[in-house]
Amino acid sequence: MSDLVITSPANQRLKDLVALRRRRTREAAGVTLLEGLEETTLALDAGVVPHTLFHCPELMLDEGTGRALVERARGLGAEVVQLGRTAFEKAAYREGPDGILAKVPSPGLSLADVELSEGALVLLCEGVEKPGNLGAMLRTADAAGVALVIAADPVTDWGNPNVIRSSKGTVFSVPVAAASTDEAYAWLSEHGVEVVATTPDTDVEHTGADLTGAVAVAVGSEKYGLTDAALARADHRVRIPMVGQANSLNVATSAAIVVYEAVRQRRAR
Amino acid sequence: MSDLVITSPANQRLKDLVALRRRRTREAAGVTLLEGLEETTLALDAGVVPHTLFHCPELMLDEGTGRALVERARGLGAEVVQLGRTAFEKAAYREGPDGILAKVPSPGLSLADVELSEGALVLLCEGVEKPGNLGAMLRTADAAGVALVIAADPVTDWGNPNVIRSSKGTVFSVPVAAASTDEAYAWLSEHGVEVVATTPDTDVEHTGADLTGAVAVAVGSEKYGLTDAALARADHRVRIPMVGQANSLNVATSAAIVVYEAVRQRRAR
Repeated sequence: MSDLVITSPANQRLKDLVALRRRRTREAAGVTLLEGLEETTLALDAGVVPHTLFHCPELMLDEGTGRALVERARGLGAEVVQLGRTAFEKAAYREGPDGILAKVPSPGLSLADVELSEGALVLLCEGVEKPGNLGAMLRTADAAGVALVIAADPVTDWGNPNVIRSSKGTVFSVPVAAASTDEAYAWLSEHGVEVVATTPDTDVEHTGADLTGAVAVAVGSEKYGLTDAALARADHRVRIPMVGQANSLNVATSAAIVVYEAVRQRRAR
Repeated sequence: MSDLVITSPANQRLKDLVALRRRRTREAAGVTLLEGLEETTLALDAGVVPHTLFHCPELMLDEGTGRALVERARGLGAEVVQLGRTAFEKAAYREGPDGILAKVPSPGLSLADVELSEGALVLLCEGVEKPGNLGAMLRTADAAGVALVIAADPVTDWGNPNVIRSSKGTVFSVPVAAASTDEAYAWLSEHGVEVVATTPDTDVEHTGADLTGAVAVAVGSEKYGLTDAALARADHRVRIPMVGQANSLNVATSAAIVVYEAVRQRRAR
């Protein structure tokens, strides 16, 4: 049995693939697109089973490695489709594509399906916009053993190709969920998780708060930080001491500093 | 006296400006280009005196704010040059320019000119490539009160427009220098600063090292970390505990975690 080969850029399946660049389409279909050998390999390593693996041998830098990934995906049960060069380049969003594209289930759980262990460390990101910052926070969450990352009132979805890329695949290995800020707070409260909000408007430093119990470290958007509503409902407010002129750390940096302070406290017990 | 107005894209001064996109030209001339109202304002706030302020009223989103910045630069002694729209758009590297460009002295000190106070905290970045990572580390350095950031064997110069942008102007407020790894080590040793290298290949956690004295936290390139030569010459080697699958933090995140551990230890004394 030979694989399906698509060469026409006007092919409907190709059009459906291109449509996945839109968040609305991704969310409606519950799928997203991985691009490139490295990204797809990381996702497979994290246990993702692609719906479809699209490949274009002509574009592969190293055909042996590319073909091995195709066979690995096929072995997992993925449909395999070969694309002609023109067709592939139409579907790819990156400059200089390497001949591998995969349609995969979008990352993200419903909060209702999440089970937390005792004393879990959670990261709550409210309104964070930049995919690169979400990706960096996922790498931190992965390294620090964060049990769950919640995007509250998200501007950017977890299936965003740039989140996936900058997360180095960790968006598939760290449990992630999206919810409104209200839902997130209600869920955390039900599960006995206290919210520790980062904000410049407090005298308590992050090293002065007890972060050894079940806590959610909360950070807000790049421009405005946490909303007043989120700050008001937080159980604790902490600030990272800053002495400089700019007086603002990058949001992913702030999250990492507080998350790793929690790790330090937990390991010191 | 009316300001010089340049409308021809073929003007030699405009060509010289465009040439500053090349690192070699920036380094030979000792100047770099700031783009945009926000970036230029941050640099002026940090004490930078532009050589020349180029403006294009037609492109300004808010002409009042734009003109105020032009007058502020003029008051500092900057030459002011008005550009026609076509000429400005040729000189600008950003999409949707806002009518402000400034030619300024490149950031960066010679190590020979740096004086450190006792117990100074230094950040040593060896071979870091991505301008965004250098910018993020500068914001961290600014916030944490780092006395000096050294780019060792730099791939990217401090005058790189994307470093300037992502640093939010802190490249002008935090003392920065560039040197070879050899020179940096020699200088640090002469000044009694011990190098604390971050690497996965040690059992000492960053929280287990004494970071209260004069120390330089050293991080390496995105892909390879610190070179063997740099690791071998370091006084201490520390690792950030990681439990995840990806097993690698972003370099700017790693720097922030160790730098803020130093801040914690110093404040706890």
